[in-house]
Amino acid sequence: MGTSRPDDPPPYYAAHVFVCGNRRPDGHPKGSCAARGSEKLRDYMKVRAKELGLSGVRINSAGCLDRCEHGPCLVVYPEGVWYHAETTADIDRILTAHLRDGERVPGLFLPPETRT
Amino acid sequence: MGTSRPDDPPPYYAAHVFVCGNRRPDGHPKGSCAARGSEKLRDYMKVRAKELGLSGVRINSAGCLDRCEHGPCLVVYPEGVWYHAETTADIDRILTAHLRDGERVPGLFLPPETRT
Repeated sequence: MGTSRPDDPPPYYAAHVFVCGNRRPDGHPKGSCAARGSEKLRDYMKVRAKELGLSGVRINSAGCLDRCEHGPCLVVYPEGVWYHAETTADIDRILTAHLRDGERVPGLFLPPETRT
Repeated sequence: MGTSRPDDPPPYYAAHVFVCGNRRPDGHPKGSCAARGSEKLRDYMKVRAKELGLSGVRINSAGCLDRCEHGPCLVVYPEGVWYHAETTADIDRILTAHLRDGERVPGLFLPPETRT
């Protein structure tokens, strides 16, 4: 689990991005990504990825990624790098630096807590 | 893009499973995962993963994964292995063989076509 094997099928997407679209009721103590604007950011990211001509990149909506307190959040697989994105400028940085240029945007990383 | 780096944050989930929940209108020529029963399979998978006590495994719903013709489909990251699951028995095999025991269920692999 968690490790590719030599005989696994080849990757279908070079990068598969999941943007949390979970919405909790207004006033919920945890908040939610959609209540913080993730749906518009996801739609923007899809359009911009196409405009940038990023091949092999899929921008996907997802249900609750269960890191609500850090939302709006997204994760890039297979590398498993999580980002907090609040604005379209944040999305642009992730698209150009990480997904186009293969770099990272550490200023938007989620805190590196590990699950127990 | 697509490759972990030594200074990336540690993985948050040991295995992150995305089950396609896209639904197209009845009669659509491509069909859709939800029209083929993926929502019930996703709910079953969530419950069974908990029953099996799989730690660090997240079962997530997702929007269209864009492999509709092979649905109901799901993908396991970070290894990026795609499966076609039609029945709860298929889900059990993926949970126990892949997610619990670190093996694979090649009989349920999606065809290994690559994107261009």
